[in-house]
Amino acid sequence: MITLLTDFGLRDPYVGQMKGVIAGIAPEARVVDLTHLVPPQDLVAGAVALDAAVDAFEAGAVHVAVVDPGVGTQRRAIAVRTRDFFLVGPDNGIFTLVLDRHPARQIVRLSNRTYHYRAADGPASSTFHGRDVFAPAAAHLEAGVSIDALGEPMDKLVRLDLPRPKIGERAITAHVLAADHFGNLFTDLTAGQLVDWLGETARDAVELRVGDAVIRGISRTFADVEPGEPVAYVGSGGRLEIAVRNGHAEDALDAGPGAAVHLARPG
Amino acid sequence: MITLLTDFGLRDPYVGQMKGVIAGIAPEARVVDLTHLVPPQDLVAGAVALDAAVDAFEAGAVHVAVVDPGVGTQRRAIAVRTRDFFLVGPDNGIFTLVLDRHPARQIVRLSNRTYHYRAADGPASSTFHGRDVFAPAAAHLEAGVSIDALGEPMDKLVRLDLPRPKIGERAITAHVLAADHFGNLFTDLTAGQLVDWLGETARDAVELRVGDAVIRGISRTFADVEPGEPVAYVGSGGRLEIAVRNGHAEDALDAGPGAAVHLARPG
Amino acid sequence: MITLLTDFGLRDPYVGQMKGVIAGIAPEARVVDLTHLVPPQDLVAGAVALDAAVDAFEAGAVHVAVVDPGVGTQRRAIAVRTRDFFLVGPDNGIFTLVLDRHPARQIVRLSNRTYHYRAADGPASSTFHGRDVFAPAAAHLEAGVSIDALGEPMDKLVRLDLPRPKIGERAITAHVLAADHFGNLFTDLTAGQLVDWLGETARDAVELRVGDAVIRGISRTFADVEPGEPVAYVGSGGRLEIAVRNGHAEDALDAGPGAAVHLARPG
Repeated sequence: MITLLTDFGLRDPYVGQMKGVIAGIAPEARVVDLTHLVPPQDLVAGAVALDAAVDAFEAGAVHVAVVDPGVGTQRRAIAVRTRDFFLVGPDNGIFTLVLDRHPARQIVRLSNRTYHYRAADGPASSTFHGRDVFAPAAAHLEAGVSIDALGEPMDKLVRLDLPRPKIGERAITAHVLAADHFGNLFTDLTAGQLVDWLGETARDAVELRVGDAVIRGISRTFADVEPGEPVAYVGSGGRLEIAVRNGHAEDALDAGPGAAVHLARPG
Repeated sequence: MITLLTDFGLRDPYVGQMKGVIAGIAPEARVVDLTHLVPPQDLVAGAVALDAAVDAFEAGAVHVAVVDPGVGTQRRAIAVRTRDFFLVGPDNGIFTLVLDRHPARQIVRLSNRTYHYRAADGPASSTFHGRDVFAPAAAHLEAGVSIDALGEPMDKLVRLDLPRPKIGERAITAHVLAADHFGNLFTDLTAGQLVDWLGETARDAVELRVGDAVIRGISRTFADVEPGEPVAYVGSGGRLEIAVRNGHAEDALDAGPGAAVHLARPG
Repeated sequence: MITLLTDFGLRDPYVGQMKGVIAGIAPEARVVDLTHLVPPQDLVAGAVALDAAVDAFEAGAVHVAVVDPGVGTQRRAIAVRTRDFFLVGPDNGIFTLVLDRHPARQIVRLSNRTYHYRAADGPASSTFHGRDVFAPAAAHLEAGVSIDALGEPMDKLVRLDLPRPKIGERAITAHVLAADHFGNLFTDLTAGQLVDWLGETARDAVELRVGDAVIRGISRTFADVEPGEPVAYVGSGGRLEIAVRNGHAEDALDAGPGAAVHLARPG
């Protein structure tokens, strides 16, 4: 299983070319698109989407992420092995969130050109590493090539400078990381952090503020509030999310990426 | 074969997660996207698209449709067996049109949690039944699990309150159900209803009115009229359709969903 | 391997229906989407996208292209055999660019109705040849049916009247054929033509003009210029391309399809 996440859009045949290269190397590979509509060069949105998606896949999957404003510069191309899966893409922080939860066990730079793709009539391109470096690396991993063979070992990866929730005794300041196409807001507060902080406090007793909106309690699902009302809940991706039932929270609450989400409990 | 139709859009990795869950349960399943751009929560558009598509698939397919404004409420999650295929999705009317042509033989509520998906670190979510309830149900059906195992039997389904054509001796009032991205209009008049009504009447003799436009005759194809002219024909989905040759009928005729289409024959 | 390129968009289930028909005929076929967002009826954009993509696929692939303003007219439906792959689609010039590089060895008109698809309740449609003529032809080729069986032989194909670069001793006038979603511009000058013309001339010595912009030298990659600066390079599709590093060349240079690109060398 190979998954693909890019900012290539769907108008051009770039993703199709990646799949052609994969099929030439690993004909039996199943390939699943996570999304190709990451806003161009938006590493945070890509990191959030990838992090939300990986847990739905069986162990052994190879996740390719190509949001790559630095293609053709000295930024490195990498493959990472975690306990359960492989990651392939540029070393620019796109894997920051997923590696926070699934630590890297091995990192290589994709420097072995034997495993690059080159068009019949020329060298590997310097502008389309998705096709020429990342797709073939993923396909070779899927086909059983050892990650060691793909290039030289590396230690340290570039990290995105993401906000982190400030967790105090009585209050948390979390942040919106991204919004989905329904306008639902993903925050940087994970389910685990929330549960630890809550302790014995009932979910109903928590008060949240996002912009001007006040939300009473952390709900189980949208239907716990009336249509048009804002609602906070632990989303399917394992993070605190904010939505407006049958509405668009990002617009209605005027709360895009970076906005603060305040949680408080009685005390 | 499993098909997927949703209003999840293509920007977020929701569909990819559904495919990950499916692959974990039924690794050999082929998965085809029908569309994920149903307008958010537009059940009629979803019902029309699904109805147009199912006949292109071989017997045994599992068709998953997730347009689900009621996720997290008491609306039921269902699987339906027809003679030729299975349907999986919310019980909110999304299957109304397809069941009119392919009657339900068995209905179950997807109440057996053994066949739900749950993330490694928590329970099945209350907000993403596409991943946690519908995808695994479809994958289990595809993998050979009996529909009986998925939950308790049900009798009666929610139906959409769709317009129906008024079919008289000399005239029909049909209605536009939806438009496609070319602007072509799908009506609620099926090929079978049209043929029955026509009897011995020549197709050329029928006069149609849509808004201010008068269309003479039911054509075989676009090319039977001049570019820019409106044309009525039996479309590939088995319904009366209205188009403008090399144009956009919805805009040109100002006739969106709900608009009346009048047919008359000489008499 | 079957690839699909259309202007059907992603909102309607048309592509899904094509895949259903393919799966019914060739269940083992892998199907890859090149793009379905070719601007409606834009044959040049479709021709450029197809040409850029085919080389990434292994020999034996079947490439289906359906940008087909003439569906239902007398335009012919065709299959073409080249040395390495098959092409299936309308005879309207969509294959012009790819056939310039991969000459046709055999052409047939898809006139044998045995190999058309027809819905259970009626004849093949006159409006959806993607599902009823092209998808089944591709699937039959993939399944091993000889191209000879699909219909009568043909000689001559419709060609698009595309610009061609004017190549002089000291200067070339090339043309923008299309832009991708990043705004990068594809020209009609191929890598081979450029290399032949350059001869001993260094790539750095060439001066390009696009609109008001002057670009010095043909670069290896985006990173050879500063962010915001225009850059010319041989793209992954084997053509001279113009981009703006971390920007949108089509907008920034006001140079869409048809715009002239002048190259000159010292002398």
